[in-house]
Amino acid sequence: MSRKKKTPQESLVSMTELVLPNDTNTLNNLMGGRLMHWMDIVSAISAQKHSNRIVVTASVDNISFRHPIMLGHVVTLKARVTRAFSSSMEVRIDVEAEDVPSGKKIESNSAYFTFVAVDQSGRPIDVPEIETTNEEEKALYEGALRRRQLRLILAGRMKPSEANELKSIFEIK
Amino acid sequence: MSRKKKTPQESLVSMTELVLPNDTNTLNNLMGGRLMHWMDIVSAISAQKHSNRIVVTASVDNISFRHPIMLGHVVTLKARVTRAFSSSMEVRIDVEAEDVPSGKKIESNSAYFTFVAVDQSGRPIDVPEIETTNEEEKALYEGALRRRQLRLILAGRMKPSEANELKSIFEIK
Amino acid sequence: MSRKKKTPQESLVSMTELVLPNDTNTLNNLMGGRLMHWMDIVSAISAQKHSNRIVVTASVDNISFRHPIMLGHVVTLKARVTRAFSSSMEVRIDVEAEDVPSGKKIESNSAYFTFVAVDQSGRPIDVPEIETTNEEEKALYEGALRRRQLRLILAGRMKPSEANELKSIFEIK
Amino acid sequence: MSRKKKTPQESLVSMTELVLPNDTNTLNNLMGGRLMHWMDIVSAISAQKHSNRIVVTASVDNISFRHPIMLGHVVTLKARVTRAFSSSMEVRIDVEAEDVPSGKKIESNSAYFTFVAVDQSGRPIDVPEIETTNEEEKALYEGALRRRQLRLILAGRMKPSEANELKSIFEIK
Amino acid sequence: MSRKKKTPQESLVSMTELVLPNDTNTLNNLMGGRLMHWMDIVSAISAQKHSNRIVVTASVDNISFRHPIMLGHVVTLKARVTRAFSSSMEVRIDVEAEDVPSGKKIESNSAYFTFVAVDQSGRPIDVPEIETTNEEEKALYEGALRRRQLRLILAGRMKPSEANELKSIFEIK
Amino acid sequence: MSRKKKTPQESLVSMTELVLPNDTNTLNNLMGGRLMHWMDIVSAISAQKHSNRIVVTASVDNISFRHPIMLGHVVTLKARVTRAFSSSMEVRIDVEAEDVPSGKKIESNSAYFTFVAVDQSGRPIDVPEIETTNEEEKALYEGALRRRQLRLILAGRMKPSEANELKSIFEIK
Repeated sequence: MSRKKKTPQESLVSMTELVLPNDTNTLNNLMGGRLMHWMDIVSAISAQKHSNRIVVTASVDNISFRHPIMLGHVVTLKARVTRAFSSSMEVRIDVEAEDVPSGKKIESNSAYFTFVAVDQSGRPIDVPEIETTNEEEKALYEGALRRRQLRLILAGRMKPSEANELKSIFEIK
Repeated sequence: MSRKKKTPQESLVSMTELVLPNDTNTLNNLMGGRLMHWMDIVSAISAQKHSNRIVVTASVDNISFRHPIMLGHVVTLKARVTRAFSSSMEVRIDVEAEDVPSGKKIESNSAYFTFVAVDQSGRPIDVPEIETTNEEEKALYEGALRRRQLRLILAGRMKPSEANELKSIFEIK
Repeated sequence: MSRKKKTPQESLVSMTELVLPNDTNTLNNLMGGRLMHWMDIVSAISAQKHSNRIVVTASVDNISFRHPIMLGHVVTLKARVTRAFSSSMEVRIDVEAEDVPSGKKIESNSAYFTFVAVDQSGRPIDVPEIETTNEEEKALYEGALRRRQLRLILAGRMKPSEANELKSIFEIK
Repeated sequence: MSRKKKTPQESLVSMTELVLPNDTNTLNNLMGGRLMHWMDIVSAISAQKHSNRIVVTASVDNISFRHPIMLGHVVTLKARVTRAFSSSMEVRIDVEAEDVPSGKKIESNSAYFTFVAVDQSGRPIDVPEIETTNEEEKALYEGALRRRQLRLILAGRMKPSEANELKSIFEIK
Repeated sequence: MSRKKKTPQESLVSMTELVLPNDTNTLNNLMGGRLMHWMDIVSAISAQKHSNRIVVTASVDNISFRHPIMLGHVVTLKARVTRAFSSSMEVRIDVEAEDVPSGKKIESNSAYFTFVAVDQSGRPIDVPEIETTNEEEKALYEGALRRRQLRLILAGRMKPSEANELKSIFEIK
Repeated sequence: MSRKKKTPQESLVSMTELVLPNDTNTLNNLMGGRLMHWMDIVSAISAQKHSNRIVVTASVDNISFRHPIMLGHVVTLKARVTRAFSSSMEVRIDVEAEDVPSGKKIESNSAYFTFVAVDQSGRPIDVPEIETTNEEEKALYEGALRRRQLRLILAGRMKPSEANELKSIFEIK
């Protein structure tokens, strides 16, 4: 019997944060660690929604921080599950920052966190699969396999020679 | 005239944190986002020590979280600069968690954060180069080039075909 | 010349919070003060979006807390401006709490906060008017007048005998 | 047998807070939500003192914020129970803010919070009645009935036509 | 011309705190460091009230912690200036903890903090003298001289042989 | 049978903190109470390491704060056990603050905290003795006896006339 399926839309979570003094460094920039703390919370809630389970953070993919987010800016984080593998889920987080009084958008960024669903004693437990409903969701679903291979290689749990899907990144971006 | 040089030892920073209730989820596990927040602070201080400048987080490499760290555990984070490129620095953070009353070590993990040194108006500014003093530092220094190519590819700022050092990861790990 | 108009939808802000240990009392219930702190932040951001100005909290209407929200629950707050009066804006906040692992909705609540838009020296400044686009928005827009009269009476700034719209509350609910 | 009685003085609690950077918005004003968080804590302690029970916040009456309280100001909150109804207690909180170096009083405000006393499993439990000892306490005790009717009407649990005491507010303030 | 005088009563400040999860260790005891943090805030406000100046903490006298204060307890701190020396003030803090539901008083403790009043550029500035109004205040005022000599000796700024008042501690307690 | 022995080096703990806005007063100085909070955490971890037990803060010796530590400074705290008495341990904390961008050391300070090791029900339990390995550790070990006598006298638990080691402080510093 096949596992239950859910769409990415069913795990969509939106979080809004105001950058306060203690979130910033001496240049009044939001510290990267604070932003990652928020990313972790919003994506954990998204993985909880998909799995209806307690979840623990398994890994975080490479994140770049391009433009400084400042004191007083409003940060909006949107998270949704892109693909599930047995007990693990990849969550994509899209981040936007805005200087609301001027209406200026400051930053547009994204990141991938991976979570494992666990039972009350902390053992991994299977989660529903993802069913995509449009082209964008399908592209994210397919890219998840490549990103997973890169994660396993970087964690020393897969040989690069076995990463068939990932190899394609070296031919066409 | 060549830039000043500093050793990784000169930027070594050690930080110890006690896992408090608000740092944990409903399983009493330390949340991944809180650990990344600490990683960001300790590595920013390390990059400040190397550069004697204000620094901003530029990127975070892939991190895996293997074993749960629990409420009451003591987390020790050690950071040092592995290599500098013009105004940017790669910092390696080694994390250990310990259940002190039992003396049991819980977790051994590592991560790489990249920082850019900036002047008071936020413009990038050159930093000292790294001079290695032993084999371990030398290995980290050389690996930094591969990790940098992976970062640039993942950020869409380098073509995979140009990443000569990175390609080697697909032959020998 | 008439003022610019904006719809309630343009100021809609959604915020998601996870109830952490420090947010709770000894029964593991979310403390009312913590929830009001979140309500204030989400509604201030909504009023900022409507006015593109810095805003200060002017008043909070009567709030009832019906069902306890517990440690580990996910709280979702949605705020939007219902009506503007010169420099002040009424914001309605709808709160839902959910025990995500079980999928059980715990609480459904709402509140009204009022904000004043100010310039850099803290002086009140006019904001756009509200243009309603459906029946629900229209009902909220019209109720705003009654709620405003009650606020002014309770603050001792209007005589009850002058509150024509409010009086209707004593005939038909 | 009649219930035990206590005076408002027996539940008087005084709390002093210093406004720190994270309590303020970009104008360096204390955020309304932070002040309400403090109001909730001081009034919950007062209701605990009156009832010698764990208490949960049941409702908050309309609050106006008149003058901005600034970074560095000292806020003093005094709370006491004004009247008890079976398991619920109305608490009045008086707030003063002061710029201590200049000795200037900034704000004088008041609010009413209502709490329910509960046993260890969260069920409501009766509390002592209030015995007034002077004219001011008596006026607060009598006003509590009107405020309670307004709360019940606003929560949709009483018909306006039945609120005999409240109706008087529309004749004489 | 003699300096202005103020009574200890004029600088009396009372602060009430509820012990929350993040204030406690794994035995659910209030951590000593958190209590000292509160002691510092309440005594700084008291010294500000006496001097109408910004103040900085100069020293803390020996403090003993006798009985554990627990999660959920209510801590009351009362501070007042006992004596002033040019620009410095000694503040006595009396601490009580209570398990409010049971009405059991848990702890009775006291401590002395010393503050220096400074102007906007951080330079020490004279403060009013203390005028005692009863026997208890007079005893605290006189003991302040002995405690000051002990502080100066322990900080290496006075020779023990010159501490005439302190020597008496070695004859009669 | 004699108790196990451990060196001070085995309990050495190093902690690094960045001074954030909420840690400072209106002069942007680190508040003394915040520094003591950090001192308590680092020394508790050190006492835990020595005893492999849960520990509670028993007392804090006189601390002087000489130079202001500012917003953005990096504070390094190093703690180690200097001597053990049955179930109690004296921990010395050395504090340094640095303005990292300029490389300027701001403050050099030290303090002594005392902890008691307890079992799961909170009863005192014996800890290993200290074995010194160099002259500096030996001097700290011997001074611990004098400091302990002063603590006991100040807590009213020893008569000054019985404090033989302490008396020497009044002859030679």
